[in-house]
Amino acid sequence: MLYCVSMELIPIQTSRLEGKIDLAHFFLSAMEREKIKLKNGDLLVVSSKLVAVSEGNVVDISTIVPSAAAKKRNISRYGTGKEDPRIVELVLREAEKVIPGNMMIALKDGNLMPAAGIDLSNAPDGIAILLPKNSWQSAWKLRATLLKKLKLKKLGVAIIDSRCQPLRWGTVGIALGWAGFDGIEDVRGQKDLYGKSLKVTRKAVADNLASAAQLVMGEGDEARPFVIARDAPAKFTNKKPDPKKIRIAPSECIFEGVYNKHVL
Amino acid sequence: MLYCVSMELIPIQTSRLEGKIDLAHFFLSAMEREKIKLKNGDLLVVSSKLVAVSEGNVVDISTIVPSAAAKKRNISRYGTGKEDPRIVELVLREAEKVIPGNMMIALKDGNLMPAAGIDLSNAPDGIAILLPKNSWQSAWKLRATLLKKLKLKKLGVAIIDSRCQPLRWGTVGIALGWAGFDGIEDVRGQKDLYGKSLKVTRKAVADNLASAAQLVMGEGDEARPFVIARDAPAKFTNKKPDPKKIRIAPSECIFEGVYNKHVL
Repeated sequence: MLYCVSMELIPIQTSRLEGKIDLAHFFLSAMEREKIKLKNGDLLVVSSKLVAVSEGNVVDISTIVPSAAAKKRNISRYGTGKEDPRIVELVLREAEKVIPGNMMIALKDGNLMPAAGIDLSNAPDGIAILLPKNSWQSAWKLRATLLKKLKLKKLGVAIIDSRCQPLRWGTVGIALGWAGFDGIEDVRGQKDLYGKSLKVTRKAVADNLASAAQLVMGEGDEARPFVIARDAPAKFTNKKPDPKKIRIAPSECIFEGVYNKHVL
Repeated sequence: MLYCVSMELIPIQTSRLEGKIDLAHFFLSAMEREKIKLKNGDLLVVSSKLVAVSEGNVVDISTIVPSAAAKKRNISRYGTGKEDPRIVELVLREAEKVIPGNMMIALKDGNLMPAAGIDLSNAPDGIAILLPKNSWQSAWKLRATLLKKLKLKKLGVAIIDSRCQPLRWGTVGIALGWAGFDGIEDVRGQKDLYGKSLKVTRKAVADNLASAAQLVMGEGDEARPFVIARDAPAKFTNKKPDPKKIRIAPSECIFEGVYNKHVL
């Protein structure tokens, strides 16, 4: 008989987060309330919004003075009408590069994201939530604290957000940073069903994990900012990941024929 | 106390598929061998490659006579060197539109896909596997057969593939067709943590499910072409999905500023 190990996705509900806090403490309190314990080999998925708020990476919109460039830019988020110039200003400040067009697509941490990841939902009126300052570092730090406090040996942490897809409706997950597991598994050289070597395949394990977590996390008032993935066939590692390794230069990307000069 | 329902992903191993077969029968035999039963409320994820092979949607490469256009096109898949003109010919035949560039990105069923989804891995030497002819119809048909045979009321089926991501390494999942559940959940109007209405959010549930399944499916010789997602918080429906509804016209897509004239 064949044997298949199944994988579990366990969402953890928390209270609403109101400001800067210690993230590990917040997580451990929720786990205690839920009577769930982390195990060796678990992957912990954390919403980037929670991380950003816990780090105080939020902006009071009323304090932003829009530049002339921001005022001039008749641009919209998601095609829903002209944007508040203060939000445009915030995007110009946050983005590595804003791609010209009718919508506010920007490069942020190497990813093409609407409004450079700035979000007004799940925030009090007048407050914009930015992305975590450094999701890689936050993942690494949270993992280190949890390994120590819970006396675990194998644990992965991924900080995730949702993202729009080219030409398709609906948001999927993206991992902004991770630690403790191979977020991109190189399966080149592995054999296929006919014994031929796979030549080009890398698996975006962390991004797949982000999308899996999105299934149980919710986007509204569900307040489930943590998901534990248990018995995932992940490769654990203590090596610090290199964020540069996930990026592909636009000219070397398989979609290069699709991009215009503003990306290339 | 708060209560969190966890979700399970159960991979189903099968024998290697050698040619045209009845897909429902192949699945039910594997389930019997594994002693696993489908339950009401399960989502069944099926690899598109398995579906294509089961439908005989494969091509003997030696039978292809490349056109002059295919021979002229000095193009490569994945940047791994000049492509066999017969494969280029196959891409030209299969694609809705081939985007000019160094790599063979093509529009196929509304998606930007390398080589229009044509794949040589997990196929015998000299054979190319195409995408299923109509993944929507195949999902609908498989679901209907399983509902009847197993006397179930609520069942979702999704046919999935892997896809490359813009500017990032690694493949994630994509749902090519689905039936029996809301593959794109419209959460506009739902309240966020502060009681504000979410304005623009749609969740790509089927694509997230595809990525979740990729975590346990494997890309090599694992032969796990089915995954059951159990206790997923999906919205089940008996309505036939409308494939046109998932597509966004390039000019209306949030990434419009990113595309060149060949896409727009």
